[in-house]
Amino acid sequence: MKIALAQLNYHIGNFDYNYEKIKASVETAKSQGADLVVFGELAVCGYPPRDFLEFRDFIRQSKAVIARLAKLSSEVAILVGAPSVNPKAEGKDLFNSAYLLAEGKVKHVSHKALLPTYDIFDEYRYFEPCTDFQVVEFKGHRLAITICEDIWNIGNENPLYKVCPMDELMKQQPDLMINLSASPFDVKHAEERLNIVRENVQRYGLPMIYSNNVGAQTEVVFDGGSVVMDKQGGIVEELPYFEEAVRCFDTDQLFVEKASEDKEQAKEKFPLIHDAIVLGIKDYFGKLGFKKAILGLSGGLDSALTTVLACRALGPENVLAVLMPSKYSSDHSVNDSLELVKNLGCQHKIISIQEPNATFLELLNPHFEGKPFNVAEENIQARTRGLILMALSNKHGFILLNTTNKSEAAVGYGTLYGDLCGGLSVIGDVYKTDVFALSRWINRDKEVIPVHIIEKPPSAELRPDQKDSDSLPEYDVLDEILAQYIENRKGPQEIIEMGFEEALVTRILRLVNISEYKRYQTPPMIRISSKAFGVGRRMPIVGKYLT
Amino acid sequence: MKIALAQLNYHIGNFDYNYEKIKASVETAKSQGADLVVFGELAVCGYPPRDFLEFRDFIRQSKAVIARLAKLSSEVAILVGAPSVNPKAEGKDLFNSAYLLAEGKVKHVSHKALLPTYDIFDEYRYFEPCTDFQVVEFKGHRLAITICEDIWNIGNENPLYKVCPMDELMKQQPDLMINLSASPFDVKHAEERLNIVRENVQRYGLPMIYSNNVGAQTEVVFDGGSVVMDKQGGIVEELPYFEEAVRCFDTDQLFVEKASEDKEQAKEKFPLIHDAIVLGIKDYFGKLGFKKAILGLSGGLDSALTTVLACRALGPENVLAVLMPSKYSSDHSVNDSLELVKNLGCQHKIISIQEPNATFLELLNPHFEGKPFNVAEENIQARTRGLILMALSNKHGFILLNTTNKSEAAVGYGTLYGDLCGGLSVIGDVYKTDVFALSRWINRDKEVIPVHIIEKPPSAELRPDQKDSDSLPEYDVLDEILAQYIENRKGPQEIIEMGFEEALVTRILRLVNISEYKRYQTPPMIRISSKAFGVGRRMPIVGKYLT
Repeated sequence: MKIALAQLNYHIGNFDYNYEKIKASVETAKSQGADLVVFGELAVCGYPPRDFLEFRDFIRQSKAVIARLAKLSSEVAILVGAPSVNPKAEGKDLFNSAYLLAEGKVKHVSHKALLPTYDIFDEYRYFEPCTDFQVVEFKGHRLAITICEDIWNIGNENPLYKVCPMDELMKQQPDLMINLSASPFDVKHAEERLNIVRENVQRYGLPMIYSNNVGAQTEVVFDGGSVVMDKQGGIVEELPYFEEAVRCFDTDQLFVEKASEDKEQAKEKFPLIHDAIVLGIKDYFGKLGFKKAILGLSGGLDSALTTVLACRALGPENVLAVLMPSKYSSDHSVNDSLELVKNLGCQHKIISIQEPNATFLELLNPHFEGKPFNVAEENIQARTRGLILMALSNKHGFILLNTTNKSEAAVGYGTLYGDLCGGLSVIGDVYKTDVFALSRWINRDKEVIPVHIIEKPPSAELRPDQKDSDSLPEYDVLDEILAQYIENRKGPQEIIEMGFEEALVTRILRLVNISEYKRYQTPPMIRISSKAFGVGRRMPIVGKYLT
Repeated sequence: MKIALAQLNYHIGNFDYNYEKIKASVETAKSQGADLVVFGELAVCGYPPRDFLEFRDFIRQSKAVIARLAKLSSEVAILVGAPSVNPKAEGKDLFNSAYLLAEGKVKHVSHKALLPTYDIFDEYRYFEPCTDFQVVEFKGHRLAITICEDIWNIGNENPLYKVCPMDELMKQQPDLMINLSASPFDVKHAEERLNIVRENVQRYGLPMIYSNNVGAQTEVVFDGGSVVMDKQGGIVEELPYFEEAVRCFDTDQLFVEKASEDKEQAKEKFPLIHDAIVLGIKDYFGKLGFKKAILGLSGGLDSALTTVLACRALGPENVLAVLMPSKYSSDHSVNDSLELVKNLGCQHKIISIQEPNATFLELLNPHFEGKPFNVAEENIQARTRGLILMALSNKHGFILLNTTNKSEAAVGYGTLYGDLCGGLSVIGDVYKTDVFALSRWINRDKEVIPVHIIEKPPSAELRPDQKDSDSLPEYDVLDEILAQYIENRKGPQEIIEMGFEEALVTRILRLVNISEYKRYQTPPMIRISSKAFGVGRRMPIVGKYLT
C-alpha cells in the first residue's frame, strides 16, 4: 500500500480554504499513486478552534467539509481530523475525531481519548474522551488510529491519564499505527516528540505514521516535522520543519528487519527559534490578510532583532522601521539603527518625539502639582512613540510589531500603551540572554545586526544615562531566576536554595506577580518555550501571592 | 447543634489575610455558641487561584493555614475549603477539598467531584475529581458535604457529568447537606442557584446549608446570598448579597414539618447589576492596594454611568473625572459633564486636547502622504486622551477606569490604547440598552445623571456631527443580535430566521469576529452576564469564521 503524508498549514474557521488545501493534496497524492492520504488533527477547522467549537453553525460547516471530502475519496482514501458530534446526550457535545473517508463515504471515525487540559490546551472544555477503541481494516492493513496526546501515555505512566489508547488498540492486533497531531513548537518539543514516536514503535513493535500540522495560529506555532518510522525505529521520512509538504511512501518500507538509514534533520536551538518566529510573523499577517509591518527602532537590540525577523518573514520592502529619538537618546541609537536599516534594506522614517513630548509636559505641568520626575514622564515618551506608530499603522494599514523580550515582560519593564503596543509580540517569549544569543547566531556569517547594538549596555533611554542594570540585576542572573519561577514553577525557597540571594529572589518574584495587570493587556506573544506568557499561563490579577 | 454560616470576601493567595478573616469569624461563631462554622470553597487560598495552583510553594502555604486553623478548632469545629494534595501518583496533583477541622485536628476531608471546565472555569486543569464519597458523623448529625458544582447534576441529568455526588452520598443515609461554594454572580444566577438548592432539598428530603463566597476577584464577582433551607424547602436564612456576613442558627429549625416563613430577598436585575459592579470596583482597588480612580468624562452616557458607579464604590473624594474636549466636542458635552460632577461631588479637571492633537497632526502630516482623514486621525484624539489619563494616573498613583460598554466592545467600536485604556473595565459586560436602563434606574428618585446625557443621541465626537447610528444600527437591534450570538451562541442562519436582516446580521457578526485582536488587549471587564468577554470567552485571533 502507498500512503501519502500531508503536513499542511490550516486556517482556523476558514473552511473553504482548508477544503481547497486538502483537496489539492489529495490530487497530489493521487498522482503519486497513493492509496491513502493522511492529514493532521482538526485539519478541517484548524487547530485550536477554541470557543468556535461551541457554535453549532461552526460544527455544521465542518461537517459539510467532511461530506465534500468524502466525495473525493473514491480513488484515494482520506484520513483527516475534524470535530464530530457526540451522539449520546451524556458527556460533552463533541469528540476530537479522525475521519477515514473511502469509496466516497465515511468508512470509520476514531475519537481522541487523552484530552490535554494544561498550559495552552483546553480540550476538556469541549471534547468528550473516547472510551471505545476500534482498529480499522484498510487494504490488508489493520490501522491503529490515534490523535496527538493519545500516544503520550506510554505504559500508562503519565499521571494525567488513566487509559493508554495504544494498549487498548493492541488488543485488536493492529499492524500499523497512525497518529494525527497538532503538536505545537517549543524549543525542546521536536526532540521530545520524536522520542515519543520511537518509544511507541519500540514498545508495540509496529511502524508509526505521525502526521503533524504546520503553521502558526496567532501565538502558537505548529512546526511540522511529521515522521514515518519503520518497525525497527528507523526514520523512513521526516518532513521538514516549518514548511508544508506532501510525501508518499510504500508501507513495505515499514516492515523491515533492519532499521532504515536515519533521515533525521538537525534540531538546533537558535535555528529552530529563528524559524518558528519567522513563521509566526508570516502567518499572523497572512491569515489576517495584512502584508506590511511597522515597528519602532530604538537603537537597542530587541527592536533590532525584531526588525531582522520581520524582514525575513515579510520581506524588507514590507517593513517600516521608525526611529523616534528624544533628548535622552544617544547619538549611536540613531546611527546604529540606520546601519541596521541599510543592512536589511527595509524602509525607515525618523520622527523626533521632542515636540509632542514637550507639548504634553507643558500641558500636564499644572496638573502634576510639582511632584518630581518619575515614571509618568518616562511613560509619556513611550506612549508618544506608541501613538505615532499606531497613527502610521492606522493610516497605511500596517500591523505594529511589539519588540518586548520575555525578561522585560516578566518583570513589567515596559509601558502599557507605549512600547507594549502592537498586534503581535515577536520576541516576547525570548529571554534577554537568548536575544543576545539569537542575534549572534544571526550574525554568524556576516554582520546583519551592527555589533555595537549587541555589545552596548541595554538601556530604555527614558532619562539621562539610564541603564537596564540600574534597576535590574544582570540578565544572566535575572533570566535564570525567571526560568526557575516561570518554566519550572519553583517557589522562592527552592530558588534561594539554588544559591541566589534571598532579597533578589523576593524582589524579582514580586515584580513578576505585580505585573500581571500589564501582561493581561499585552499582545499575543509567539510561543517558543514550554511556558509562555498569555493563554498558557493564567494568573489572577488581584492575587497577593509573593507580592 | 448550632451552626454558623460565614460568607466572607477572601483575597487570592493572601494567606495571612484569609487566615485572620477566618479566625475572626470563628471567634464570632464561638461567641454565638456555634458547634460548627462553615466557610466557602477554596476559602483558604481564595477562588479562583488559577495557575498559582501549579506552585508547590502555594500549596504548602495553603496547608500551613489549614494546620493553623485546626488549632482553633478545639471548641468549635470548622468546615473550610482549600486544595489538598492527591496522594496517588495517578491523576491530577490536587483535589478541590473541604476540610472538617475539629478537636484541634483534621477530622475529615471531602473532595469535589464535578469540576466545571467551561466559561470562566478551568477546574479540570488543576483538580482530580472525587470518586470516593463519604458521609461524616458530627455531633449526632450525618453530614453530606459537597462543593459547589457537585449539587448541579440533579438526577444525573446534566450532560457534562456522569456521577451525581448527592445520589452517592445518600447511600450512607446523611441527614444534612452542606455545600461550600464559590458561585459567581451573573444577572440570572442568584435565582438559578436558589432553585438548585431547593431542588436538592426536595429531591432528597434533607435540609441544606449552602455557603457561598462573596467579593470580586478581578472580573469575577461572587455575590454571596448563602442560604439555609429547611427540609420542606423553606428559607430559614438567606445571607445578604454582596456583603460579608456570619449568621448562626440551630439545626432544630431545619427538621420541621412545615416550611419556615420565607426570608428570600428581592432579586431585581438593575439593583443586582449595580451592586455587583460597585463591589467589583471596590474590591479591584482594595485588593490591589489602591484608593483613587481617574477616568475620562466625555459628556456621553457610558463615562457618566461609570463615574457614578466609581463614586459609589470609592467615594466621590477618590474619583477624578477628566474632561478633555476637542474641536469636535459639542458645548453640551462639557456642560453636561460639569453638571454630573456637581451632582456627585467628585473631583474634576478640564484639559483640552487641542494642542497635543494639533502637534501630532503637524508632525505626522508629511508621513500621511496626503491620504484623506480616516480612523488614524480619530484615533490620535482618543490616544491623546488615553495618554493624558495615564500620565495623571502614573503621577498620582490612581487607577484608570475604562468606560467601554459591551455593545462597543463587541463590534470593536473603540480605540486600542485610547478609550480602551484602563486597569478595569467597569461596564464592559453591560450592553448599551442596559446602560440606558441602569442609568434610568439610578435616576429613579432623583436626577443623578443629567437627563440630557441619557437622552441625547450617542456619539464618539471624533469627527464633525458624528453619531453612533451613522455606522451602527440602533442599539436595541444591535444588542439583540449580539446577545443571540454571544450569550446564546446562535449562528448567522438562526439569527436571520428570528427576523433580522441578512446583510445586517452578517455585518455585525463579522465586526464581532474581526475585533478579537482588540478585545485581547482590553482590560478585564466586571462580569455580570453568563457570557462576558475575557477569560470566559476564548476565541482565536487569526481565525476566519464569519469574517
